[in-house]
Amino acid sequence: MQKLIKNLIQENNAKIILVVLDGLGGLPVNGKTELESACTPTMDSLARNSACGLHLPVSMGITPGSGPAHLALFGYDPLEYQIGRGILEALGLGMDVKKTDVAIRCNYATIENGIIKDRRAGRIPSEESRKLTEKLQSNISRIDEAEILFAPGMEHRSAVLFRFPEPLAPDASAINDTDPQTEGVAPLKPVPGSQAAEQVVRIAGKFIIEVSRILKDEGKANYMLLRGFSIMPELTSFREAYGLNALAVANYPMYRGISKLVGMQAPAVDGDVMDEINFLKKNYVDYDFFFLHVKKPDSYGEDGDFDGKVLRIEEFDLLLPRILELKPDVLVITGDHSTPSMLKGHSWHPVPVLVNSPYVLGGGLCNAFSEKDCLKGELGIFRTVNLMPLALANAGRLKKFGA
Amino acid sequence: MQKLIKNLIQENNAKIILVVLDGLGGLPVNGKTELESACTPTMDSLARNSACGLHLPVSMGITPGSGPAHLALFGYDPLEYQIGRGILEALGLGMDVKKTDVAIRCNYATIENGIIKDRRAGRIPSEESRKLTEKLQSNISRIDEAEILFAPGMEHRSAVLFRFPEPLAPDASAINDTDPQTEGVAPLKPVPGSQAAEQVVRIAGKFIIEVSRILKDEGKANYMLLRGFSIMPELTSFREAYGLNALAVANYPMYRGISKLVGMQAPAVDGDVMDEINFLKKNYVDYDFFFLHVKKPDSYGEDGDFDGKVLRIEEFDLLLPRILELKPDVLVITGDHSTPSMLKGHSWHPVPVLVNSPYVLGGGLCNAFSEKDCLKGELGIFRTVNLMPLALANAGRLKKFGA
Repeated sequence: MQKLIKNLIQENNAKIILVVLDGLGGLPVNGKTELESACTPTMDSLARNSACGLHLPVSMGITPGSGPAHLALFGYDPLEYQIGRGILEALGLGMDVKKTDVAIRCNYATIENGIIKDRRAGRIPSEESRKLTEKLQSNISRIDEAEILFAPGMEHRSAVLFRFPEPLAPDASAINDTDPQTEGVAPLKPVPGSQAAEQVVRIAGKFIIEVSRILKDEGKANYMLLRGFSIMPELTSFREAYGLNALAVANYPMYRGISKLVGMQAPAVDGDVMDEINFLKKNYVDYDFFFLHVKKPDSYGEDGDFDGKVLRIEEFDLLLPRILELKPDVLVITGDHSTPSMLKGHSWHPVPVLVNSPYVLGGGLCNAFSEKDCLKGELGIFRTVNLMPLALANAGRLKKFGA
Repeated sequence: MQKLIKNLIQENNAKIILVVLDGLGGLPVNGKTELESACTPTMDSLARNSACGLHLPVSMGITPGSGPAHLALFGYDPLEYQIGRGILEALGLGMDVKKTDVAIRCNYATIENGIIKDRRAGRIPSEESRKLTEKLQSNISRIDEAEILFAPGMEHRSAVLFRFPEPLAPDASAINDTDPQTEGVAPLKPVPGSQAAEQVVRIAGKFIIEVSRILKDEGKANYMLLRGFSIMPELTSFREAYGLNALAVANYPMYRGISKLVGMQAPAVDGDVMDEINFLKKNYVDYDFFFLHVKKPDSYGEDGDFDGKVLRIEEFDLLLPRILELKPDVLVITGDHSTPSMLKGHSWHPVPVLVNSPYVLGGGLCNAFSEKDCLKGELGIFRTVNLMPLALANAGRLKKFGA
């Protein structure tokens, strides 16, 4: 499908804004979902004159992680392109991952006589993890041909990049986790699952010895388990796939990282949603596609805080007129997945979406922007990966297919 | 997709009940379908608080047989996995089909001087067919290395198994029907369509000679045509695919047979729907997935008996509270396909479905359980094969896909 789209692309000056309210979809508590409970006059008014529907990130019943959900929004089939756990962790910690890197999620752990006592080193405080990671970085900057780059994470977590001089084969990260997923046993040895992985396993073996030597006198965090060996997926850039010059506006590193995967510009943006919108406005003339990521609805959903999620949705609705002032040719407002407060996590439920452009049926099919109203919309329930072609079409950026 | 699901499975104690009202979907006569005409207060009430929609067994416009329809309900794509006609006939006659068997549908026929006079032997009464089949079985129990097993069917129909000592290659049943589909010509010779089929054709050739010798003095049924040579499809078991310990509760052998194909336990259950429900309740603690098959709505639909079908749906609704007493974590009520009385047969129309669990929008999107109300439901129209993942998700039995 992406190949078809690529052949139909025609460039023009139309601008597309994709707003992603992370974890937007919800489930009813006392009869109403978070989005139904939120007072959102601006989105409701937009919905009445937009093409509305619900999108399914992967497939019915499948709960997506943030990686697959965003790939789908960007038009890359998440069943075809998968982002490894190591890559996602490194991106989430703000690392600048390159095609020559193998990325690994690391856990500080406690080991005694070669046996794992605690896979999470007693969940050491993030501050301690930061110090340990700095210590490792100052002692280990290179192993053989690979540059070694560390980034500290929350509690016992961190990420490591092995940066090689040359790009790696797609199967170069086919390596098992050294985490045996249980305590009271020895850590696993990294074993290459392909010929291309042998080079990486050699570095990993030496890395484990070096790290163990440096950490050996630490109380709890005297070992490091390696998980999710992965390399950057090969993704056609937004520019090449859609002819779009795209800017990601996201105050969380992971979403900037995923945007960079598809070739968007994604400079660091600090602050809250207001700051993000200001940043978008400041850069509006220089790009023709804008991905604006609003993190908080998901965070409150994950915490099971129904009212907090409602407030964050309302907060965005209050700021939305500032985006409308830009008069984008196409405005898409949606989520990447559902995060119902009652489930305290991502879920499989389809996500409400509105596509605002002059070329829709509109006409009050939906009376508000909500899960239930979007069911009545002109888009029906569709796979998320089809959203980008729809946005492009509404922007006049897709030619006719066939004669 | 099934491979993806398998990787996401997490086991828990949640119980899923799948009720299949065979041939549930219908078409309006005097403005109302069978399901709309039926008085079904319990299903209507459930529908108001369930995720509802319609599912398409195979694809738009495709009328499914019972085999494909049930495979789809069980999450096996019927376009990928096909159950041969011989296998389905044998299962329908209650035969215990094994991986080492070639199953064949047989027609008693009338032959004269090598020419077929009647492909159905004048539709001899079932009683006569039973006697002839017993006669054949008592004369033929083995041909070369193959054990021969007969089962009598309705009128001129029967089934035969060639049971080999070893499992067969997947293409071992690539053999043409000997039925030329017309009268006044000679029956066809069985010809192997693959090397693996040569062994089976050798047995079939000797089988035809033996059968003809034994039947030669019968008036009408003096020959047997062989159709639908097939072997058991290779299906991942429910246990392996979903981590489910599954019980089929079905009073018709064919549905027990299809359930066994996917590794469900399917002991014989006699009696009516009430007996089936009692059987389910008695075994409720020992399994975590229950397939309850209700045959009659389809039978009346096939007979073109609109009111009879209505009554059988109402009968189930009266018994439904006995199932609700079990408080399953997920209850799915649907059909395998539509059987509109006006068509006196299966049809291509999508089938209403309700999925009851705490994790649905619900909220009165549907006011009743019917084809038209389900159109307003939160599930939309979807391929049947997606129903199992949805049920698993609602049961908390699927992990997140990707990070």
